[in-house]
Amino acid sequence: MQEGSIFEKVVGEETIYKGVYLNLKKFDIVLPNGNRGIREIVEVRNASAIFAVDEQMNVLMVRQSRPAINKTGLEIPAGLIDENESTEDAVRRECEEETGYQPRTIRKLIRYAHAEGYSTGYITLYLGIGLEYTGKMKLDDSEYVEPVLVPLDKVVQMIRENHITDSKTILGAALCERFIRDGCRDEGLLLV
Amino acid sequence: MQEGSIFEKVVGEETIYKGVYLNLKKFDIVLPNGNRGIREIVEVRNASAIFAVDEQMNVLMVRQSRPAINKTGLEIPAGLIDENESTEDAVRRECEEETGYQPRTIRKLIRYAHAEGYSTGYITLYLGIGLEYTGKMKLDDSEYVEPVLVPLDKVVQMIRENHITDSKTILGAALCERFIRDGCRDEGLLLV
Repeated sequence: MQEGSIFEKVVGEETIYKGVYLNLKKFDIVLPNGNRGIREIVEVRNASAIFAVDEQMNVLMVRQSRPAINKTGLEIPAGLIDENESTEDAVRRECEEETGYQPRTIRKLIRYAHAEGYSTGYITLYLGIGLEYTGKMKLDDSEYVEPVLVPLDKVVQMIRENHITDSKTILGAALCERFIRDGCRDEGLLLV
Repeated sequence: MQEGSIFEKVVGEETIYKGVYLNLKKFDIVLPNGNRGIREIVEVRNASAIFAVDEQMNVLMVRQSRPAINKTGLEIPAGLIDENESTEDAVRRECEEETGYQPRTIRKLIRYAHAEGYSTGYITLYLGIGLEYTGKMKLDDSEYVEPVLVPLDKVVQMIRENHITDSKTILGAALCERFIRDGCRDEGLLLV
């Protein structure tokens, strides 16, 4: 089969809502078999996230209210990328603003689409090795998070027990757990 | 710190759009520090997905147009859960409808929120071990996908090279790769 042979052709586009955090559009599409359809597309800014650990294998996390899923999340630091900002600069900035910690070294793990069915958004996920405390937290007026260091064992347990449920934290743990336990020394990082 | 102490209180709610695949709402919220804010929330149905392999370590995938991210995705089978349907029934049904294959045995890996910042949606991810061909593909009128079996090595390579970019496929590979390579025999499944 040919790459691209099943592409849905967008033949119309309408903006339904322009908001603070997201825009909503409606696409009219034609499928390869000639059928028509619509796709409702959410435009959001891309984000960076970091799975950062200190020398004692504690994971740097934030507690944050998530009204969309009606819970308080315990997640790795993440934030939206500013215009003209690199994903790497964004993740260093967001990490310090949300937690008061800077990662000593960072390593890019993966860039992924978090809701490819209806959203434009990508998250670029980093591993951070070593933490330095600067105390320079800086939250937006409409943001309220609490930083917390959580032992890696506890993070894994909370994922297993479905208390930690966000994709970036789970993916970070899945990709890095063994690598961190091995002392971040070898090339055993899963997938990357 | 107390669990729940940072919960954002929703003091107003407005429906902005009711659509075919999603609804959009606007929440007025009060932060713990008294600040007001808004949250734009996308309501979507939950989905199931399956990372299924045959005896030759081929991964069952579908090629599918993804206009939201302007690409043709190569992804594991997934679909929305019908009303009153279990996540397990949904994943078996969607797998067969999209590919014509049924997984012999399935095992729940994890349930995760794919966009907790603005979406209500959860994906329940399964591992499928062994495949049986039934040929019973059944696509909706507005759906067009092509099934394909891809060697696990190739899937991992395509993730590394950023050709496969969706969270469910990447997370499935991250959680299952070593387990599958070890013959699905031990309890070495990462995180679960």
